[in-house]
Amino acid sequence: MTTIQDIADRLHIAKGTVSKALNDAPDVSEALKTTVFEMAVEMGYTKLKIRKDEAKTLCIMVENMAYENKGDFGYDIILGFRQMAGRNGYEVETVPLSKESQEALSFDAFMLKNKFMGAFLLGYTIHDPWYPQFRTSKTPAVLFDNYIPSNPHVAFVGADSQDGLNQAVSYLREQGHTCLGYLSTGTDSFYTRSRYQGFLTAMEKHGLPLLEEGIGIRNPVKALLDEDLPRVLHAGATALVCAYDEIAIGAMERCRQMGLRVPEDVSIIGFDDIPQAENTDPGLTTIRQDLIQLGKCGYYALDSLINQVPISTVLLHGELILRSSAGRCP
Amino acid sequence: MTTIQDIADRLHIAKGTVSKALNDAPDVSEALKTTVFEMAVEMGYTKLKIRKDEAKTLCIMVENMAYENKGDFGYDIILGFRQMAGRNGYEVETVPLSKESQEALSFDAFMLKNKFMGAFLLGYTIHDPWYPQFRTSKTPAVLFDNYIPSNPHVAFVGADSQDGLNQAVSYLREQGHTCLGYLSTGTDSFYTRSRYQGFLTAMEKHGLPLLEEGIGIRNPVKALLDEDLPRVLHAGATALVCAYDEIAIGAMERCRQMGLRVPEDVSIIGFDDIPQAENTDPGLTTIRQDLIQLGKCGYYALDSLINQVPISTVLLHGELILRSSAGRCP
Repeated sequence: MTTIQDIADRLHIAKGTVSKALNDAPDVSEALKTTVFEMAVEMGYTKLKIRKDEAKTLCIMVENMAYENKGDFGYDIILGFRQMAGRNGYEVETVPLSKESQEALSFDAFMLKNKFMGAFLLGYTIHDPWYPQFRTSKTPAVLFDNYIPSNPHVAFVGADSQDGLNQAVSYLREQGHTCLGYLSTGTDSFYTRSRYQGFLTAMEKHGLPLLEEGIGIRNPVKALLDEDLPRVLHAGATALVCAYDEIAIGAMERCRQMGLRVPEDVSIIGFDDIPQAENTDPGLTTIRQDLIQLGKCGYYALDSLINQVPISTVLLHGELILRSSAGRCP
Repeated sequence: MTTIQDIADRLHIAKGTVSKALNDAPDVSEALKTTVFEMAVEMGYTKLKIRKDEAKTLCIMVENMAYENKGDFGYDIILGFRQMAGRNGYEVETVPLSKESQEALSFDAFMLKNKFMGAFLLGYTIHDPWYPQFRTSKTPAVLFDNYIPSNPHVAFVGADSQDGLNQAVSYLREQGHTCLGYLSTGTDSFYTRSRYQGFLTAMEKHGLPLLEEGIGIRNPVKALLDEDLPRVLHAGATALVCAYDEIAIGAMERCRQMGLRVPEDVSIIGFDDIPQAENTDPGLTTIRQDLIQLGKCGYYALDSLINQVPISTVLLHGELILRSSAGRCP
């Protein structure tokens, strides 16, 4: 086990200085603190002793995601996480992340410095500075909608795309549809890839052949709706499965412009159940991704990593919310 | 909310009799108890009030799996589950399942009758009488190595096959192998299908083409090793990835009979890390499926369902255990 003396020896500084740096004393420079924390992490000193009277604290890190106001995507996820963590005796701090803060200190050193036992990361992308570190980081971390293989200290939490898309395809099949189209703005992020894969698997499972020209993948949404949607319908699709609700809502409007009625002529299904979904006309049939429950899943995943149970994945059941945008095949 | 009076009215019997039946009183016949429990479940009465002085009890149901002695596959899974459940204030009962007991009472009624808050099922197969009920059952249930879609009260727990196979393929690639074979006794059970799928995905991810004739799927193991293994090697495979350790151990022996050295001529990797794996000669390189950790995952999954967090899946990271059966490409 690495001791404070080991770190001091390696850096050729006094043990007292290392101790002060690790305890964030005001008379140690920030530059030296950074050096000490990075060395401590390198030498495997990833856990500061937490005194009995100190709170056990978890951290929610947010980037590229609105979360401060009710209705923001991250708001309910954070709420669910806090409810579960609070009930189990943890304090929770929410920290907005920036590229600069990630470049200033490594992930493990940041966690050590702030005495956070584990982190739940929202809106994190593969372009972020810490991303490559998650292959080898040592502090428990749960990523929403991002899968890191083979690191026992990192887990992934998200909706069960397979289950969700299967419910959508299964419902459309029951309504007599056999020609389904699929619309997405991409397949390169983790969740767009999972959902597309979920659609393909569900089609195969239900014995439905894929339509030639029945898949539209294009960014941004406007180009997808202008260029791909008409082609997908022309190929024979009587129902459109959309990778997320914004596409589905746009597709309803686009179909109307083309003189088609939803759902009489075309059925449309989304994914997420965003707040607008119930106020569209007709109301949007969609797969609900329950954000409060996702936050609770994040807590479960993090608590299990903290207890040294090296889970890789926690998926939440989707739920098909039936409104009026999908119906019988014409 | 369904009351005892509602059940009594529906069955045209006295409220006191329903109450006695639900409390397993000795002066009510077993046949009437069964009727009352099944009706209670049908009417949505799935939770008996648990008095404050009663223990919260979870149930581990085992079928088709040895579990009573150290070294049995189920032994450590149950141990891990009990450790975690006990630490969190639950009692745990282990119940061997039979076809008869499943036919006598539905799953929900069985759980209600025994006041079990949730069940962890080991060794359960799609041929078991309760299996179809898990699509609509209401009592929290976690199945080891079995995935039930779309029921918010049921979750699946298992090893992350994708992650495990990816580590195996990645390691062999680093050792210079580009022609890999795969051996399995089937792809029809949940775990054999996931592992085969994991192999295919990993091969694609690492840009390795599949060998024509490089996949052997046959039951039992002896036929697989006699008929498929020589063909897979003849097709050019320098390494064999096996769906589980028993196949890998058999393959090592079969290669020796054919005059081939392991790992100098052929590398072999298994999956599971069963107790024998470290005592083979050479020691078997394999993906460890940590059984105690899997049991703990089962607890986490069940606790989250009991707390109404409808997870569908919890996967455990695999860990590549390097021994000597896999090495440099010849």
